[in-house]
Amino acid sequence: MRTEFQTIEYLKSTFDLSRVGDDCAVLHKDADTDLVITADMLVENVDFRLDWANAKQIGHKSLAVSLSDIAAMGAVPKWAMLSIAVPERLWDTGFLDDLYYGWHVLARQFGVELVGGDISSSPDLLVIDSIAGGETPNGKAILRSGAKAGDAIYVSGALGGAAGGLALLEERRGDTAPDSELVKRQLQPHPQIELAKTLIQQGLVTSMIDISDGLSSDLRHICRASSVGARIDADQVPIYPGLVTTFGSNRSVDMALNGGEDFELLFTAASGFVADEEFGITKIGEISKNNGSIVIFKDGKPSELDPGGFRHF
Amino acid sequence: MRTEFQTIEYLKSTFDLSRVGDDCAVLHKDADTDLVITADMLVENVDFRLDWANAKQIGHKSLAVSLSDIAAMGAVPKWAMLSIAVPERLWDTGFLDDLYYGWHVLARQFGVELVGGDISSSPDLLVIDSIAGGETPNGKAILRSGAKAGDAIYVSGALGGAAGGLALLEERRGDTAPDSELVKRQLQPHPQIELAKTLIQQGLVTSMIDISDGLSSDLRHICRASSVGARIDADQVPIYPGLVTTFGSNRSVDMALNGGEDFELLFTAASGFVADEEFGITKIGEISKNNGSIVIFKDGKPSELDPGGFRHF
Repeated sequence: MRTEFQTIEYLKSTFDLSRVGDDCAVLHKDADTDLVITADMLVENVDFRLDWANAKQIGHKSLAVSLSDIAAMGAVPKWAMLSIAVPERLWDTGFLDDLYYGWHVLARQFGVELVGGDISSSPDLLVIDSIAGGETPNGKAILRSGAKAGDAIYVSGALGGAAGGLALLEERRGDTAPDSELVKRQLQPHPQIELAKTLIQQGLVTSMIDISDGLSSDLRHICRASSVGARIDADQVPIYPGLVTTFGSNRSVDMALNGGEDFELLFTAASGFVADEEFGITKIGEISKNNGSIVIFKDGKPSELDPGGFRHF
Repeated sequence: MRTEFQTIEYLKSTFDLSRVGDDCAVLHKDADTDLVITADMLVENVDFRLDWANAKQIGHKSLAVSLSDIAAMGAVPKWAMLSIAVPERLWDTGFLDDLYYGWHVLARQFGVELVGGDISSSPDLLVIDSIAGGETPNGKAILRSGAKAGDAIYVSGALGGAAGGLALLEERRGDTAPDSELVKRQLQPHPQIELAKTLIQQGLVTSMIDISDGLSSDLRHICRASSVGARIDADQVPIYPGLVTTFGSNRSVDMALNGGEDFELLFTAASGFVADEEFGITKIGEISKNNGSIVIFKDGKPSELDPGGFRHF
């Protein structure tokens, strides 16, 4: 079966789509500025479940995933559109108002204006397409394709929390209250807009992606786009607080390496990059010349890191 | 039950959304140019059916509806994104390749570049969100809100054809072959990009909308946005060729007034506007001062024109 990645590669080559394949497309805006744009489709029972998340959380997450793509380009978000296909069972329940409210609260934090979209009826499931536009100085968007051998690899924050929250929801284990930190991490991710802005100020970030599919998959996206390889140290990968207590060490490492939707930043930087402690970022490895080879060291022993991919519900 | 229109009005006032409500949102691009953007969501069994339209036609129509919105602003389309939620039954069938192919053939006609989007899995139905961006000179986008009392009201082409095609498909009547003119009108609409460009050259078009919901509804959108009324002459409304032969006179007039998805242009123009025959446009009435009142004259007798609305399948 053809994967989504293979499908996109096929379409790119068939229709000569040079701008497709990064977190956002980069378009010329004016003499000083580029426009970056992204679209993310969220489907009920694939990307969210109504018995796990309320309308406000779904609204929040719809925008958060797109703002995270904007952050991954090192851009500042400006406007957004929201297309929604609404099943009849939700139409007159106030659900839509709450969804827009959750969307709006996050939008206001970042000065993002809702400029359009569409509302359609759906025979069955709720489907949301979240579109966002942002700006960078000309030619300054951080692409996946800029990593060079010798660059250090960093991640922001800590990983595996969203996967842990998902597991709690799936397994209806223990503390699955909406205010549980892990569950909140899954349902209400925070896009790293401010951090991205800070990180790129030194001019040494060479590539960046947001961790939506999982570290192992997203690092592979960078390596593919940059025609490089990578070596990472499992012991250095920051694990989300409380994850080990709940899931044990092995499963927590797996969640941190392969769990999706942490919406942290994974980036590479040229030598000289100063990782101030206040950034909350961690060096986890180094880019190598070995195109396509991602080696992970565990207890000093190397093995190939296979992409865990994003695990849907 | 709250309508889509009421929902959008509620959201506009609650969240102070000044740019929402026209065919496209208008954003500042640079010193000379505005960016116009639009998103249209198409849902299987609401906006299209797989037993009526093939993948190429669905791809074509997805883009056509968005380009029609761009045309309605008097803008030139530039780029587009396509988000698709694909059910498993269609994933490995070549359906997606054909859909993109149909999309691409239309895009190439207008020099539109696919710059991004999303591919997601769907548990059930095919859902498409079509996003398009275009450009106009600064401040020159034609809004719904510019109609003035005394302006003439025009439509391009002829109306009711798409509704006729839909009826043929629904009723499986007579000539429902995909190459039937009426069915083609429903399944493969042509966005009036070139015509819009020509029409606005005289600088006298005061408001414009594309006919997606139906003449009666779309004229109401213009009147509401412009705080005016309208008088139209039913005998002047151009009826799609062949419609009367198939459906009789009364039903054809109903289709022309209330049928959706013709994707022709409905616009108003100030006095002095010259409607060259080659434009293929027809004057159907005049804007009045009577805010919200749309009067239709049939055989010389006036009556209020109620919005027929877009009739989904």
